[in-house]
Amino acid sequence: MILVMNIDSTLEEINQVNERLETMGFRNQVIQGVKKIVIGAVGDPLTSNALKELTQMPGVEKIVPIMKPFKLVSREAQNEGSVIEVGGIKIGGQELAVIAGPCAVESREQMMESALAAKNAGACMIRGGAFKPRTSPYSFQGMEEEGLKLLREASEATGLPVVTEVIDEQTLQMALDYVDMLQIGARNMQNFRLLKAVGQIDRPVLLKRGMSATIEEWLMAAEYILSEGNQKVILCERGIRTFETYTRNTLDLCAVPVVKRLSHLPVIVDPSHGTGDRQLVEPMSLAAIAAGADGLILEMHPNPAKAVSDGAQSLTPQGLNDLMGQLQTLAPVMKRIIP
Amino acid sequence: MILVMNIDSTLEEINQVNERLETMGFRNQVIQGVKKIVIGAVGDPLTSNALKELTQMPGVEKIVPIMKPFKLVSREAQNEGSVIEVGGIKIGGQELAVIAGPCAVESREQMMESALAAKNAGACMIRGGAFKPRTSPYSFQGMEEEGLKLLREASEATGLPVVTEVIDEQTLQMALDYVDMLQIGARNMQNFRLLKAVGQIDRPVLLKRGMSATIEEWLMAAEYILSEGNQKVILCERGIRTFETYTRNTLDLCAVPVVKRLSHLPVIVDPSHGTGDRQLVEPMSLAAIAAGADGLILEMHPNPAKAVSDGAQSLTPQGLNDLMGQLQTLAPVMKRIIP
Amino acid sequence: MILVMNIDSTLEEINQVNERLETMGFRNQVIQGVKKIVIGAVGDPLTSNALKELTQMPGVEKIVPIMKPFKLVSREAQNEGSVIEVGGIKIGGQELAVIAGPCAVESREQMMESALAAKNAGACMIRGGAFKPRTSPYSFQGMEEEGLKLLREASEATGLPVVTEVIDEQTLQMALDYVDMLQIGARNMQNFRLLKAVGQIDRPVLLKRGMSATIEEWLMAAEYILSEGNQKVILCERGIRTFETYTRNTLDLCAVPVVKRLSHLPVIVDPSHGTGDRQLVEPMSLAAIAAGADGLILEMHPNPAKAVSDGAQSLTPQGLNDLMGQLQTLAPVMKRIIP
Amino acid sequence: MILVMNIDSTLEEINQVNERLETMGFRNQVIQGVKKIVIGAVGDPLTSNALKELTQMPGVEKIVPIMKPFKLVSREAQNEGSVIEVGGIKIGGQELAVIAGPCAVESREQMMESALAAKNAGACMIRGGAFKPRTSPYSFQGMEEEGLKLLREASEATGLPVVTEVIDEQTLQMALDYVDMLQIGARNMQNFRLLKAVGQIDRPVLLKRGMSATIEEWLMAAEYILSEGNQKVILCERGIRTFETYTRNTLDLCAVPVVKRLSHLPVIVDPSHGTGDRQLVEPMSLAAIAAGADGLILEMHPNPAKAVSDGAQSLTPQGLNDLMGQLQTLAPVMKRIIP
Repeated sequence: MILVMNIDSTLEEINQVNERLETMGFRNQVIQGVKKIVIGAVGDPLTSNALKELTQMPGVEKIVPIMKPFKLVSREAQNEGSVIEVGGIKIGGQELAVIAGPCAVESREQMMESALAAKNAGACMIRGGAFKPRTSPYSFQGMEEEGLKLLREASEATGLPVVTEVIDEQTLQMALDYVDMLQIGARNMQNFRLLKAVGQIDRPVLLKRGMSATIEEWLMAAEYILSEGNQKVILCERGIRTFETYTRNTLDLCAVPVVKRLSHLPVIVDPSHGTGDRQLVEPMSLAAIAAGADGLILEMHPNPAKAVSDGAQSLTPQGLNDLMGQLQTLAPVMKRIIP
Repeated sequence: MILVMNIDSTLEEINQVNERLETMGFRNQVIQGVKKIVIGAVGDPLTSNALKELTQMPGVEKIVPIMKPFKLVSREAQNEGSVIEVGGIKIGGQELAVIAGPCAVESREQMMESALAAKNAGACMIRGGAFKPRTSPYSFQGMEEEGLKLLREASEATGLPVVTEVIDEQTLQMALDYVDMLQIGARNMQNFRLLKAVGQIDRPVLLKRGMSATIEEWLMAAEYILSEGNQKVILCERGIRTFETYTRNTLDLCAVPVVKRLSHLPVIVDPSHGTGDRQLVEPMSLAAIAAGADGLILEMHPNPAKAVSDGAQSLTPQGLNDLMGQLQTLAPVMKRIIP
Repeated sequence: MILVMNIDSTLEEINQVNERLETMGFRNQVIQGVKKIVIGAVGDPLTSNALKELTQMPGVEKIVPIMKPFKLVSREAQNEGSVIEVGGIKIGGQELAVIAGPCAVESREQMMESALAAKNAGACMIRGGAFKPRTSPYSFQGMEEEGLKLLREASEATGLPVVTEVIDEQTLQMALDYVDMLQIGARNMQNFRLLKAVGQIDRPVLLKRGMSATIEEWLMAAEYILSEGNQKVILCERGIRTFETYTRNTLDLCAVPVVKRLSHLPVIVDPSHGTGDRQLVEPMSLAAIAAGADGLILEMHPNPAKAVSDGAQSLTPQGLNDLMGQLQTLAPVMKRIIP
Repeated sequence: MILVMNIDSTLEEINQVNERLETMGFRNQVIQGVKKIVIGAVGDPLTSNALKELTQMPGVEKIVPIMKPFKLVSREAQNEGSVIEVGGIKIGGQELAVIAGPCAVESREQMMESALAAKNAGACMIRGGAFKPRTSPYSFQGMEEEGLKLLREASEATGLPVVTEVIDEQTLQMALDYVDMLQIGARNMQNFRLLKAVGQIDRPVLLKRGMSATIEEWLMAAEYILSEGNQKVILCERGIRTFETYTRNTLDLCAVPVVKRLSHLPVIVDPSHGTGDRQLVEPMSLAAIAAGADGLILEMHPNPAKAVSDGAQSLTPQGLNDLMGQLQTLAPVMKRIIP
């Protein structure tokens, strides 16, 4: 940690800062230049509390932290990449995980058809929303527990594990009886109560990046889960909000190699929300795998024109089939396999 | 609603869209040009369901909605500005509301000192956080119910009503026993379960704008609360996330007159989070009032250097005093009063 | 074009708008609903002049344009993708174009070494900057005409064509004697004088996307060049500015398939500026090609540690070699070849 | 300047960095902790060249600059605020400067009417564009030299000085014969050739902030002008590009007190481009002055409905009159005067 002192800070002020640092357990050295005085302080990262206190001390201009704020999720904590098992499927190893299914569970028939289409195309897991966070209170809010039951049924019929979004502690408790992986959606990435709650259970968690979350904030959200004891976190890039409005979001594929460098956690990509446009899902899926992603989560609907939500970005079963074919060709180039 | 048809859509496709629109209760007309065919359809705003179905019909290129998606919060629903009473204080009328207090409740002494300083400076309400959403799991998370009790005590000692943030249904239930207004923080602006929960109670709600929320999404979040029955919503602009990193956020003061035009709800400004810098709070407070805001919510701490959170952006009691003096001079220019 | 009238617009106002539209050559129809009146008007896109006049007419709430504003660059104008020849190299066809070289020309030795390394690795064109737009007036501003001469020399020694950035009409005139393709940099994407100037010559132009330019604005910048007569424009995505600061820019790879859909012009990607980090260049290069890009422009320096600019994002010759090997494996998957 | 070394950097690497720093004239100290080694180096800010070399040395993880990159524009260089005289008007002192006029010069009648309306309302300077940078090549591009003549005429008829935008060296030379202040538009903020050119003449320059420019980049652009010898620079905040689309740009009023703190240059605000909406100009004008701006530049047109550009954001003469009245009331609160 580096403390930059004001150009006109007094010797007394510098001494006070030095003393305070020492009582906090830092070893520090003053570097005096012609125009600036800086204090280099070495020790454990500060509590926020202590940091603020220092920031406010007379003479202190700014503090530059040197250590990254996340620990358990970092490559420093665990150098080897984590491989996380979800209902028999491995995510983060050599295998690419393709998860497919409708945005929302709408009916037994729709869910069953989706699950079979996913299985036939070669996907390894199914998805479907039972609790839908919607911008408008007047939009369809999901089938709730009834939807979870249909997901379970579809999972059993196909043998594919299933992931669904939970939105608070109550829906989390409910979902535990039905699904193999819990999803924390983009809007809840900093719902810290929910993060702690999924941190206290033993079930894999798919953590989507918030719409305006920096990579650091995203990793800190994962840190919440790991720090409560649950190590099974898979990250999911799903596009960030920028000035560009042609696409629904701006898919930040560069986040994939960045996260791979900073963290041992697996990372997959959601090109459906990332683009909002069915025709862009295929090129961005290929690009995601080429960038090093461990898998994809794709919206697919037996009849997108009738989907209650996100129809415009849902693949048809045939579209998913075609895409899986292309991924089969791409995988060996990236030294990956599609099981 | 306008439907733009593809340049090569067939007559049959156009007829199908027309028929579907009619069964949905729209009156519509086809306008055929040399290069484009558009269908103008007039009726109630569509459910999301119906909208998606239409988007997916063969031949449809895009749909341009004409009506705004929010209803109850709109000036069309209520032309006159709402005035909301919180513990005897009126927000949204001629009076400017200045709410002040520490970021977090830290101790009885700190809270009491803050409340007295707020009262002495002329603030009309106090603030203080008992449940703190923090980016890092290793940061101070708030005093919880103990903090609520200290807020109540400080409120009774000064006669000033009190506002505090709630972060889920459990903390909401707890806070009801202690505080006059509930705050929904920026990170929870689209926590729709929480919005519905505060919509079902009879207590004023301060709804902060999300860090990357458009004005429309913010108003839709308010619509969630009103649609559940609670009409007492006060909006709070607190800065949005942009590429500029000199300030903590970019305070979007233009949102004030925009919200005033679109909605009847009161809107106040939080220049403390909006700037992240004590020295910028004064100019931005004056600017907020000049832009037409109904009030301010300010972080103030008896000893900012010792604050456990947000010390750098907290005013001192003297700083608040000085600012109140300037607001007293500014208020009559804006035809407002500080009670 | 759709005109939405105010809820309280009078019949007279509607008639005036209708009449004005007719004198402008539009065929239009009024669609009257319970809450809104819209006028659908069909004709050529309006001049900005006329559009503004209509916007200001009494009773008009807003105007929704239906036609895209670009013409010559659009797929409607030319359905087949353009293939542009630069010094014997074809860009936009089946061949992938890899352009490599240093950020800035620094010396004969550095430029010659770079060109040979590019050729050996299998790149098809070389790059190098002679006029450097720099944020600080105190930074190296380029070798100017001396640099152009070294570029020409390196081009002749290797037989590879060369591209360089021009920054105004004077440097453009100078560069014409030395280089095969002219680059318009991100900061000059809306330097309309410069766009017109390169539009009036017969030399291929590499048009980089501005740091905060929408895809539409970028295509409009290309439209400037085509509308002056020069059809040889190649687009280059190089990252946009967002709130994320971990990378230098946010590489918007989704712009590749979007531009391919909207326009017949070739599009390549610059992962060096797009990421600002040598280690991220390889994954993002592969991702760019997987997303459908027609090529790459890469910063490569014989000794990045000594580069006068952008060393941190420059590949070494060995790094370029390795990347070309991976591209050779990827190309056939994308049905492309590297010549 | 602080150099953070890799966790696994060798003693030899550290020594090499130390030696290189010393040959560069730095005094430095190594601070060794359990997890990190940092080197504090004190001296003049590095050339970009040297900085990059250091970044690339083995063992160096990152470099944290401590000094701000701008010099001549900084408060450190000149503590007292600059007051710049433009045709007898002072900008940056106690007087508030209100500049008004049409977006584009369209005709003698329009320009004369505008200038008289500006004078009658109490504005101190007139504006009008003769060279218009337009997104579309098919839009009106300005009256060019004919427009400059009309500006001069309007200036002489009213006695008010005049400002106009120049877009390259040719238009700059032309404008020198006619106008009192030269404007560099947002799109040209990093047109460094143009910045140098205006830096070499003796005429005040109004430098608009680029659409996606950070405050630091904006000040560096001003530094270009000052470093060439021209000290008469006035900064102009005009809104930045964000995800919010309700307004044309997001007016970053907080930039006003930030620039005032960092630099001695005057700063004014353009609420017309900043909002894109006539009705928002008044509240944002008042807010700008309350935030500490030294003046305003406003689009005003005798008949906005007929304006060839930016009609929607232009005030009417009556609108300007009303606004000036409100500014007269506000000015004394801010201890300013409107001359």
